[in-house]
Amino acid sequence: MSGNTFGRLFTVTTFGESHGPALGAVVDGCPPGLAINEADLQGDLDRRKPGTSRHTSQRREGDEVRILSGVFEGQTTGAPIGLLIENMDQRSKDYSKISELFRPGHADYSYWQKYGTRDYRGGGRSSARETAVRVAAGGIARKYLLERLGIEIRGWLSQLGSIELALEDWASVDTNPFFCGQPERLPELEAYMDGLRKSGDSVGASVGVMARNVPPGLGEPVFDRLDADIAHALMSINAVRGVEIGAGFESAAQKGTEHRDEITPEGFLSNHAGGTLGGISTGQDVVARMALKPTSSIRIPGRSVDIHGDPQEVVTTGRHDPCVGIRATPIAEAMLALVLMDHYLRHRGQNADVDSGTPVIPARVDD
Amino acid sequence: MSGNTFGRLFTVTTFGESHGPALGAVVDGCPPGLAINEADLQGDLDRRKPGTSRHTSQRREGDEVRILSGVFEGQTTGAPIGLLIENMDQRSKDYSKISELFRPGHADYSYWQKYGTRDYRGGGRSSARETAVRVAAGGIARKYLLERLGIEIRGWLSQLGSIELALEDWASVDTNPFFCGQPERLPELEAYMDGLRKSGDSVGASVGVMARNVPPGLGEPVFDRLDADIAHALMSINAVRGVEIGAGFESAAQKGTEHRDEITPEGFLSNHAGGTLGGISTGQDVVARMALKPTSSIRIPGRSVDIHGDPQEVVTTGRHDPCVGIRATPIAEAMLALVLMDHYLRHRGQNADVDSGTPVIPARVDD
Amino acid sequence: MSGNTFGRLFTVTTFGESHGPALGAVVDGCPPGLAINEADLQGDLDRRKPGTSRHTSQRREGDEVRILSGVFEGQTTGAPIGLLIENMDQRSKDYSKISELFRPGHADYSYWQKYGTRDYRGGGRSSARETAVRVAAGGIARKYLLERLGIEIRGWLSQLGSIELALEDWASVDTNPFFCGQPERLPELEAYMDGLRKSGDSVGASVGVMARNVPPGLGEPVFDRLDADIAHALMSINAVRGVEIGAGFESAAQKGTEHRDEITPEGFLSNHAGGTLGGISTGQDVVARMALKPTSSIRIPGRSVDIHGDPQEVVTTGRHDPCVGIRATPIAEAMLALVLMDHYLRHRGQNADVDSGTPVIPARVDD
Amino acid sequence: MSGNTFGRLFTVTTFGESHGPALGAVVDGCPPGLAINEADLQGDLDRRKPGTSRHTSQRREGDEVRILSGVFEGQTTGAPIGLLIENMDQRSKDYSKISELFRPGHADYSYWQKYGTRDYRGGGRSSARETAVRVAAGGIARKYLLERLGIEIRGWLSQLGSIELALEDWASVDTNPFFCGQPERLPELEAYMDGLRKSGDSVGASVGVMARNVPPGLGEPVFDRLDADIAHALMSINAVRGVEIGAGFESAAQKGTEHRDEITPEGFLSNHAGGTLGGISTGQDVVARMALKPTSSIRIPGRSVDIHGDPQEVVTTGRHDPCVGIRATPIAEAMLALVLMDHYLRHRGQNADVDSGTPVIPARVDD
Repeated sequence: MSGNTFGRLFTVTTFGESHGPALGAVVDGCPPGLAINEADLQGDLDRRKPGTSRHTSQRREGDEVRILSGVFEGQTTGAPIGLLIENMDQRSKDYSKISELFRPGHADYSYWQKYGTRDYRGGGRSSARETAVRVAAGGIARKYLLERLGIEIRGWLSQLGSIELALEDWASVDTNPFFCGQPERLPELEAYMDGLRKSGDSVGASVGVMARNVPPGLGEPVFDRLDADIAHALMSINAVRGVEIGAGFESAAQKGTEHRDEITPEGFLSNHAGGTLGGISTGQDVVARMALKPTSSIRIPGRSVDIHGDPQEVVTTGRHDPCVGIRATPIAEAMLALVLMDHYLRHRGQNADVDSGTPVIPARVDD
Repeated sequence: MSGNTFGRLFTVTTFGESHGPALGAVVDGCPPGLAINEADLQGDLDRRKPGTSRHTSQRREGDEVRILSGVFEGQTTGAPIGLLIENMDQRSKDYSKISELFRPGHADYSYWQKYGTRDYRGGGRSSARETAVRVAAGGIARKYLLERLGIEIRGWLSQLGSIELALEDWASVDTNPFFCGQPERLPELEAYMDGLRKSGDSVGASVGVMARNVPPGLGEPVFDRLDADIAHALMSINAVRGVEIGAGFESAAQKGTEHRDEITPEGFLSNHAGGTLGGISTGQDVVARMALKPTSSIRIPGRSVDIHGDPQEVVTTGRHDPCVGIRATPIAEAMLALVLMDHYLRHRGQNADVDSGTPVIPARVDD
Repeated sequence: MSGNTFGRLFTVTTFGESHGPALGAVVDGCPPGLAINEADLQGDLDRRKPGTSRHTSQRREGDEVRILSGVFEGQTTGAPIGLLIENMDQRSKDYSKISELFRPGHADYSYWQKYGTRDYRGGGRSSARETAVRVAAGGIARKYLLERLGIEIRGWLSQLGSIELALEDWASVDTNPFFCGQPERLPELEAYMDGLRKSGDSVGASVGVMARNVPPGLGEPVFDRLDADIAHALMSINAVRGVEIGAGFESAAQKGTEHRDEITPEGFLSNHAGGTLGGISTGQDVVARMALKPTSSIRIPGRSVDIHGDPQEVVTTGRHDPCVGIRATPIAEAMLALVLMDHYLRHRGQNADVDSGTPVIPARVDD
Repeated sequence: MSGNTFGRLFTVTTFGESHGPALGAVVDGCPPGLAINEADLQGDLDRRKPGTSRHTSQRREGDEVRILSGVFEGQTTGAPIGLLIENMDQRSKDYSKISELFRPGHADYSYWQKYGTRDYRGGGRSSARETAVRVAAGGIARKYLLERLGIEIRGWLSQLGSIELALEDWASVDTNPFFCGQPERLPELEAYMDGLRKSGDSVGASVGVMARNVPPGLGEPVFDRLDADIAHALMSINAVRGVEIGAGFESAAQKGTEHRDEITPEGFLSNHAGGTLGGISTGQDVVARMALKPTSSIRIPGRSVDIHGDPQEVVTTGRHDPCVGIRATPIAEAMLALVLMDHYLRHRGQNADVDSGTPVIPARVDD
């Protein structure tokens, strides 16, 4: 299959450009009998959408999703689920100046070289706007995973520029526009963002995401490991430049005695592995983190060239996020949900014979 | 397709366990007319194989690969290429004690929960020994990429435990068992490893890998981005816990003015992106890094449980690498070659109409 | 990928039910630079749509397709092309009686057993209405194949009930609602259909389809042969029960001296193979034929059961085609176009190195 | 994935040429816990292998299969199963004359045009010899389907040249080299074949194949229908030119009242559908038939050209089957087993939530 489909048994195919008439997705392979409606998906869409605080892009999008197929009398039927989000705010005149220009840090140049053409209206297909339908599609997976398996998926902002953030308070994450789990540091973040916006510059971020109550056994060695597919999924989000699972890059400096997660009859004593061993889930929390680069669209002039190779100065004046990482948390959650859903269906397809019963040990983690 | 196949148009399917009769791979989709023989593949296999220095496992394996099909009169025919490596050193008696034991940090527990059974001889399918055939398969891709496109792929050890290593001297990388590009620091590494071996502990590492002369245009947005597939590929290597592209996790703390790679008619002025924008290669060097956890098989006792959930003490006495990262460089190179090869064929399948001609700008990098 | 996607490199994913809000398709992998608009696709849609003669269903559907993405300034961009056809005629009240009934010859029973539920409105996902978006998607492939490679794809009605029909006059095929290539027999067909409609019964049909100017080399042995993929494609059309290539079932009674297509410097002397040898196109015309069963929805009562296993009498009163084969010709053409397009892109991805140049022999056929 | 892999969740990848060192297959996705050994697979291999009667090729092949991986202590582990059959009878000198010649009816010309090269030793990859490993791989699926689900798969010769054969006696099918189910007609078949051999000509055939006790619900609409995948599978067998399901091509002349399989509480009253409705199994017998062309390698001279386009006379003197259809029955069974196995795993992956319980009606067939 071509590049716009994700998954093997539970698949999501997306289409649409930032300034075209609509974005859409086809979710195929969803088990029948799941109660789902537009409202179920709207919550996460609203968490991702721009313009909800002064710290994100002021582009106005309703991001209202319609379910076009695959749901009958309120339940999935097993048929593919068509999802559609119409674009409202298509001020394409804003983008006319850049039609022959390659903006640094954008996909303009690489698309041009690949396709010999590009939809220059606001990034077209390369725009992060495409992730809206990922969030909608992921919402279906999340609902299934939660209702049928009790799997909870949560993300949080773990770093904003140079400010590292701990996850201290789950409940607070969804009560602030940063998805920050340290509520006492919100004033610091707001001040930082206000200063940044004033400067005209942008900044990177990192986002953590985890899944609880994942049953052991998900993941297909050797290539389609759960962790490898998570890496694929998160790295496919716009602006992501790094992905780690569990102890991640810190593992490089660890000793075996420190890293290996010892096991007792009461459960694992630590979770440096991040919930997978040999690419298969262990029942521990699946924990990943991703790093996002700073927005390339900034007001501070930069050097570039046009399609003729001539030097040009670039200044971006549109409505852009000074930190794309802020709105990335629901996207990371959606992608993790898609990976888990696909692997759950694959696992039960291949291994439903196995009398897995109760896992040998509980998944308790004592860090 | 199931979990043991990598790629879409240029695919590699592997099979085999560490202590079974043989490991193998099927390479499908290789263009016809490539001159290839066993000797072409043996070089990288020898770089990866154990027992070549005192710092790696003393297991003795010839790792001699046979080509069973797909090559006729010294050239590929377009038919699938069957590769086979017979296992020589199958001392399965070493492993009898662990048949009911879950070794911490190993895939024992997750395989058991997934499959209800496991091949306990030395890790079976989850052993890093499986990567031998990846290296052989990757060798085919490397030869094609080099001969037809001039793409050079090189890896190096970028961190050994807490010792960070720069890449100062390409030529030296292949002249030492560490794949270290700072030859003056070899005594330091040797002393470190000797101490580690004495202590019975193990340590993590990180490995960098890059590709030069990659043409612009490789990668399929939005899910099968070049960078996302590299993340998938590298994270699918045993023990890898993190992957980054270009500036990677440092991007999180960078400003847009710093990160965006400005463009001039003479080329890009920096390469924080790591060679891809919007998931498509730009012509710059593709640069990635991966972190590997420390070997879990160590002599120092650890707590675990058996298949009945009863507590057990684990001590590993076999012939293991104290740092799996040391031998991982050729594997990373092979996986990067597989990703590039697959995307090159996909790209030309979809975009051969495009008169790409000379890229608009050269790919010169001035960091 | 799941069951609603066709193709590997040029893929089509469809969604939508006969009585839902819309049908849609995502066409992924289309090369950039192809001029395409809605009008280009509408022609084939109009050829397929119901209600254009008294011999087909009187359901009224505009079957107007909208292109939602992947086309910019009149040309494809390489991004996925979203297609949408809104359903106009959704008289779902017609179908209320059958919600608990399994209609003989329909997918009611098999869907119910598979999914535990079904969208009973007019067949839902199993309705031939789904093929409308296949025709739209196929139209993109057809245009590419014709403009870039000169490949012409044509279908015709080769049998209506017991009436066998030759293809004598290409030009006439599109001038009658039967896609009949023997214009002098039209009165016979009309009389036959009028009698059939009066009787309340339905009848089967067979449809031929061929492609001219197919370059040699398309098809991937050993499983994804061109002929095997054509068989897959045609058998995936509703009501199709048989597919043959070239001499097809007549081959069983042929001798080798008769069947083998001898070759001369002027070309092949016959085309019993139907344009493929070893699953790869030879440059001869690709010729296939498919048999369609009679419509199961008829006015004549039949025995069945309901979801409780109780016996029921079934009488269908809706607006149905007395012969689904009549409208199947554009669908067969679309599916053949999709197969050829996918294989053309795969072939050039894998074999663009081959200096194919002029085929060794011309493809002239002298039957 | 490339062209040498079949299936999505239960996949088979084959490699090897007729006169190379070995043929092989990788079976991926097999559930763990299936007892399997070489002897289980050898039976079907022996049924397919040449030289067992005077009516087939006199090539001598042991066709002994080795299991290289994926089986531990006599049971599948869930890891990929490597299968290897070494070629014994590689008299490549027989083929030296044809290295520049295109034999009519063979893949010589199409491979040459596609790949610019070909392995001319006895057909290389295009040889029916490749089907040996399909039979071995299919044996794994057959054993699973039989032991876990009670599915029986049987094939029979339904036509030899112009001689049509009924299936009257299942038990006799495996007791004669023709797989003929009308034992009283064996002398007729033998006389026919003896005459054919004397004449130097060859003849086509058709083979039927069926599966009993298939549970309802297998098959994925709309493209990966069970019947469409069967068509794909059977048409991928060398020399097959037509495939039909149930009433097949006879459907074209049938009326709806005749074709639709009425349903009663005791079961379906007929099986014109061939066991699928809407592409999903109904619980009835799955019945298919395929037509095979006559062998192209015959002693009677024929016209052809060489790679320079110059005319040549072709006479084949090797050891060839005068009717490839005779040995095709086990191959058809194997391919049907692969399709059913793949769809069973996919079905239970997607639909294990559905409380299918007892089918609404039994699958009794009263033709």
